[in-house]
Parts: sequence; C-alpha cells; structure tokens
Amino acid sequence: MTSRERIGQQVAFLAEADKLKQIIRRTPLIDLSRRENSAEHSWHLILTAMVMCEHAAADTDLVRVLEMLAVHDLIEIDAGDTFAYDFKGQTTKGARERAGADRLFGLLPDDQRARLREIWDEFEAQETHEAKFAHAVDRLQPLIQNASSGGGSWIDQNLTRDDILRRMAPIETALPSLWPFVLETIDRYCAAGVLGSTPKPF
Amino acid sequence: MTSRERIGQQVAFLAEADKLKQIIRRTPLIDLSRRENSAEHSWHLILTAMVMCEHAAADTDLVRVLEMLAVHDLIEIDAGDTFAYDFKGQTTKGARERAGADRLFGLLPDDQRARLREIWDEFEAQETHEAKFAHAVDRLQPLIQNASSGGGSWIDQNLTRDDILRRMAPIETALPSLWPFVLETIDRYCAAGVLGSTPKPF
Repeated sequence: MTSRERIGQQVAFLAEADKLKQIIRRTPLIDLSRRENSAEHSWHLILTAMVMCEHAAADTDLVRVLEMLAVHDLIEIDAGDTFAYDFKGQTTKGARERAGADRLFGLLPDDQRARLREIWDEFEAQETHEAKFAHAVDRLQPLIQNASSGGGSWIDQNLTRDDILRRMAPIETALPSLWPFVLETIDRYCAAGVLGSTPKPF
Repeated sequence: MTSRERIGQQVAFLAEADKLKQIIRRTPLIDLSRRENSAEHSWHLILTAMVMCEHAAADTDLVRVLEMLAVHDLIEIDAGDTFAYDFKGQTTKGARERAGADRLFGLLPDDQRARLREIWDEFEAQETHEAKFAHAVDRLQPLIQNASSGGGSWIDQNLTRDDILRRMAPIETALPSLWPFVLETIDRYCAAGVLGSTPKPF
C-alpha cells in the first residue's frame, strides 16, 4: 500500500466516525434542552477520567483509558445505543456490536484496525485495571448528569434504587473512594421521592 | 479540605463542562443536518490524534496531546466559539478566553486547577511538539469534515484557497507527511469552483 492509500484509509475512518454525533442516548443534557449524543458523551467521559484518575488503582495507564473511552462507543454507529436498562435489547447487544467493530475498525489500515480492535475488546472484557476504570467512568458521568438535572433518565424510566445501584457497581470496584458520594447521591434522590421504590415489571 | 469537599469540586467542574455541548461551531456534520458542537468536535480531535500520531514528531507524548484536546475548547463555555475566519472576533479572543480559563479551571481543587491550566496554556503557546500536533489536528479535522461534505463552512464563508492554506499551515509544520493530502484536497475544491478565487474584503 502506498503512503497516500494509507492516509486515504485513515481519513475514510475519521469521516465515518462523524456519524457517532448522530447516535442519541437516553441521558439528557443538564438543562434538559435535548438528549446527549454518543460523541459528546465520549468526550465527557475522557474529561471525567482525567479529573477522577486519582481515585483509580495506582498503576492505571491513563493513555490506555483515554483511548478506550474515545473508541468504546464507535460501534454504536452500526449497532445503535442500547439503553442500560433495556433488558431485552441487552440480549442481542454483543453480536450487534461485534459486527459493528468488524466493519468500522476494518476501514483502517490493518495494523491500526488490529490496535483499535484490541483496545475495544479490552474495554468489553472488563478485566484490566484500565477497562474497569473506563467502565466506572461510563457509569459515573450519567450519574453526575442525572443528579445535576433533577433526575434525568432515571425519572423517565421509573427506575428503583436497586436498578441504579446494580448499574453503578463498577464504580464501587474501580473507584472505591467515590462510592460514598454515589450512595449519598442516590439516597438523596430516593428521599426526595424522585426514584421509584417498587421493582419494575421486567 | 475534606475528601468529600474535593470530590464535590471535581463533580461541579464536570457538571459545568456539560455546557460545552451547547457551543455551536461553524463546521457542519458531514450530512449537513446540523452544525457541530465543541464537545463532539473535541472527541473527534482526540480520535484524529490517535489515528494520525504516526505522522507527528517521533518523541510526541500522546497522553499530553489527548489531554490538551480534551480541555482546549472548555473556555468557549464563557468565551463562545470564535470562528477561524472571523478576523474581528480574533482580536478580542485571547482576553475572553483567558477569563474563561480562570473561572472554569478555578472550579477544580487547586492542584488540578493548576495542572489543567498548564495544559491549556501549553496548547495556546503552540511551542511544544505536543501543542503543535494538537493545533494541527484542530485544523485537519475540519478539513476532513468540509471536504467530505462538499465544502461545508468553506462555501458558507466564501473563502479563498489562500485563506484556507494560511489556516492549515500548522499541519505542514507538525504533520508534514499529511501536507500533500491537504494540498490535493484544497486544489480539488478549487478546480471544482467550490472555493472563491478573490480575496475577501476584510
């Protein structure tokens, strides 16, 4: 492959990535003016990781975390955003997202396809310190967002305290010093009657 | 300061950062459905830096570049986005942006305020390899975006080849192996008559 062809593949991948700006998540902006998209969400996660890295395991490789967060949602261009509390959609999520990863990272030159796919696979496996930290950040940012907007997607979905606690569990594992803040935030919303108190029917 | 107060400042900063999703730039998405905001733009720059880092100086510290790109536009929450070709707005841009940096980074605990401000100051000074690379990426992504959408904000502003070449100069310095691609792209648009050929009146 010529150098010009290689650059062409890199540019084609970056142009395709533009579509992530059109994938709409459930979480609203704090002023409730609209729902967030997955591209701006990914940026917010990167900023969150930079600010919160002191709460992560001491030997965490920050650049790996930032790269993981930059690519983790790209597959939604093909697979769509599967809402965390859509328990039916979660059963087909894996296969849809792997197909998206094949196509999207496949736009890149082979060595870069392999490298970005490895980063995405590591994120999905949730085994390394870096992947656990990245997942915790992916829970923490919507919590901050929802808590700052008076409930956000929590209210919308009539979630219970237990639903949210289960979803937030990666924070307890990877960012333990933030866990009391998470509990305090959720309990404040329960006390205010914002969150439901009975289990949902599914 | 207690640990809880420190976390409170970190969370307040991250909640305030949400507002960057409402700062609208001139560059449209590739399908021209709407204009890009500065948060999703920042994410796209981070992805561009990851894919194009092989074209940067050999000893470039990628994590520094990614952190720079994550914070570089935050000041627009207060200062607004100053369009690259708004030559009048450019004269007051520095003062407006420094005031924004004082307030926004000032929401963080002191040590983090100092660290993020240093990263932003380094970006602005354009002296280190990392800052030059970050600036080049901040030129390259709109070029890819405009070239992929049939002209984008270039047409909108009736820009000439020289206007755009001047704007793209940081790419020639920091990512020289991409410069022939940049010239080829701009020349293709000139040949198609998309770009103006006479200087603008200001």
